[in-house]
Amino acid sequence: MAISRSVKDALGSSSMIRRMFEEGNLLRKQHGADKVFDFSLGNPDVEPPPAFHQVFLRFAQEDAVGKTRGVHGYMPNPGFPAVREALAKKASREQGVTLEGSHIIMTVGAAGGLNVVFKTILNPADEVIVPRPFFMEYKSYVGNHGGIVREVETLPDFNLDLDAIAEALSEKTAAVLINSPHNPTGRVYPAATLRALAEILSAQGKKTGRYPFLVADEPYREIVYISGGTPPVLSAYRHSISVTSYSKSLSLPGERIGYIAVNPGIQDEEDLLSGLIYATRVLGYVNAPALMQRIVAELTEESVDVGVYARRRDAFKTVLDNAGIPYAEPEGAFYLFAKAPGGDDGAFVNHLKQYLILGVPGSGFGKPGWLRFAYCVDELHIRASALAFKKAMETW
Amino acid sequence: MAISRSVKDALGSSSMIRRMFEEGNLLRKQHGADKVFDFSLGNPDVEPPPAFHQVFLRFAQEDAVGKTRGVHGYMPNPGFPAVREALAKKASREQGVTLEGSHIIMTVGAAGGLNVVFKTILNPADEVIVPRPFFMEYKSYVGNHGGIVREVETLPDFNLDLDAIAEALSEKTAAVLINSPHNPTGRVYPAATLRALAEILSAQGKKTGRYPFLVADEPYREIVYISGGTPPVLSAYRHSISVTSYSKSLSLPGERIGYIAVNPGIQDEEDLLSGLIYATRVLGYVNAPALMQRIVAELTEESVDVGVYARRRDAFKTVLDNAGIPYAEPEGAFYLFAKAPGGDDGAFVNHLKQYLILGVPGSGFGKPGWLRFAYCVDELHIRASALAFKKAMETW
Repeated sequence: MAISRSVKDALGSSSMIRRMFEEGNLLRKQHGADKVFDFSLGNPDVEPPPAFHQVFLRFAQEDAVGKTRGVHGYMPNPGFPAVREALAKKASREQGVTLEGSHIIMTVGAAGGLNVVFKTILNPADEVIVPRPFFMEYKSYVGNHGGIVREVETLPDFNLDLDAIAEALSEKTAAVLINSPHNPTGRVYPAATLRALAEILSAQGKKTGRYPFLVADEPYREIVYISGGTPPVLSAYRHSISVTSYSKSLSLPGERIGYIAVNPGIQDEEDLLSGLIYATRVLGYVNAPALMQRIVAELTEESVDVGVYARRRDAFKTVLDNAGIPYAEPEGAFYLFAKAPGGDDGAFVNHLKQYLILGVPGSGFGKPGWLRFAYCVDELHIRASALAFKKAMETW
Repeated sequence: MAISRSVKDALGSSSMIRRMFEEGNLLRKQHGADKVFDFSLGNPDVEPPPAFHQVFLRFAQEDAVGKTRGVHGYMPNPGFPAVREALAKKASREQGVTLEGSHIIMTVGAAGGLNVVFKTILNPADEVIVPRPFFMEYKSYVGNHGGIVREVETLPDFNLDLDAIAEALSEKTAAVLINSPHNPTGRVYPAATLRALAEILSAQGKKTGRYPFLVADEPYREIVYISGGTPPVLSAYRHSISVTSYSKSLSLPGERIGYIAVNPGIQDEEDLLSGLIYATRVLGYVNAPALMQRIVAELTEESVDVGVYARRRDAFKTVLDNAGIPYAEPEGAFYLFAKAPGGDDGAFVNHLKQYLILGVPGSGFGKPGWLRFAYCVDELHIRASALAFKKAMETW
């Protein structure tokens, strides 16, 4: 065996989501793209907003006439200073605290940002508490750096179960990792819940001297349907870190651009910031892609049209209602978390596949008995799936 | 202590190169940019070739009129299939073996590529043999994934010491990591040396059943001054992997784009390729930046003008000759590795700083008694440093 044992093991149980992606490609080849209802992958089909294309074009034009020099070169590891300052202002508005440029670390998407955070804060066998269901890649992002994911249950409506979190806390707890709006349930954690969580974590810190970090994975922060938007994490708890990306809000997942926003006044602030910069460097990111850094700094007021997703969500709800499939009410993101009739999510996903409908089993998120549908596909396509869903239910 | 102990320790001994970069910024503020002779950082000041700007502009224009859709979205983790095929052709030409698109994994620069390789091949406490001097980040890239760098000496002319490598081999050896053209010495390993190294590694594999991988870090492959160019690694040894980037050849270090080329027929080929794709995903890169993937695929025949670097190298050699500072003859890359007169590289670098000359101590590459000058700065600036070097030597 010439490759790492742990990687070899992981290959056996490789990402269900990615596997569905490959299967979808195969089915599309066999049956034609319009015949396959692929709700498996969270790859936004909504194009970036017009302002993105305008800035992109302006930068390319300036480049072509030699107006901008050195802009594709190295910059300090955490990013261009002007970009960090622009995003500090944006994050300050959103999070209700005042960040400086030094509190922003530009990253290779949110996945890169989470790896940077966990590399920086984890000692061997440290625990990161994660409410279930959750995006399974978190296990890798934590495990890459010697940590262990400690799963806790959520409430029946998928809100945080604060008692379960409080019970799971120990001196090994380095962080609690939350994701709101939530993948796969679409849940948005209310401000009151975040405040109550902060109290629990503060009490733990006072007791043990080690304040668990609250790490918020927030790539869906701007894809939200409830009034008041996504409640901020940084103003709720002092030792919190927000990790986000432009993969969803500007539909740029392939460009790998995001950032970490660190709460001013967080414990060991100076070491933590230096550590994040160091981790960015040695994990081989070195810095976030230069051009995309400059572009997103010009688009701090921009976002894709959330109305598009809201209409799709409503269309999908109608489809599931008509088919008689129950689901959790989605408040944000672009996922519907549905209950597998009968309870066997794997079998139901396989059954749906015969009707060319692709979803991801809840087991892939640590929640058997459920399945996830991603509605980042055309609304007409969602409506067109109604018949297939109905037929599938008739034969189930 | 809220951050990782190992990161906290590393912060104390943070990158010398990066520290010089910060010091350079400070000196430039104090004395003016034109007064500071900063040869510390390998940040190419040569602009990307005109063809880069043309493709960049064309893509931005196509984007602006909606001609290209979905191009900023996710693609398979190893990259766009068409990009991988284009680069397989390029790598086949350069390496003298026939690669398919499946042998190419697009990466977040060479630093990202090396992390992906080491994540994939290393078991805990596995060793990676690295000839000294070397780019110190290698220690992190190996250590991040549980491996250990085993340093070996090189010959007085900085060519590989094959006996030293043979002696260092053991059943713990996962790989030998080489870098040609070499940072910091400018050495290019001859084809005969690579063949002889391949024989040693093959013999080791036959003996132990574990063929050490030969991992070649090749970002400087196209910056070469000797006739015949950089001898290929893949055609020299079956179990070899080339990791490269466009940071130097197209002057795009900030854009973080590179690739891994895996030798067809390498041991455990299928698992290795799957492992590299898996590591790309879980290390949080997910994929190399989409736009830059598409751009470099159009520029397979392009490179910055190496003549510019050749003229700078000659100018710098004249400066050092006149100052009486001996150095290793550079055959590639854009570094001059010079002997510290008296032997104390740290003291000599500090002395030079008083004359506003910045270089990096050889200790930062595991080779005390030497220092590195990067000549990716304007030729006139190099010539202008002659007087400062001369004065510095007079008072040394």
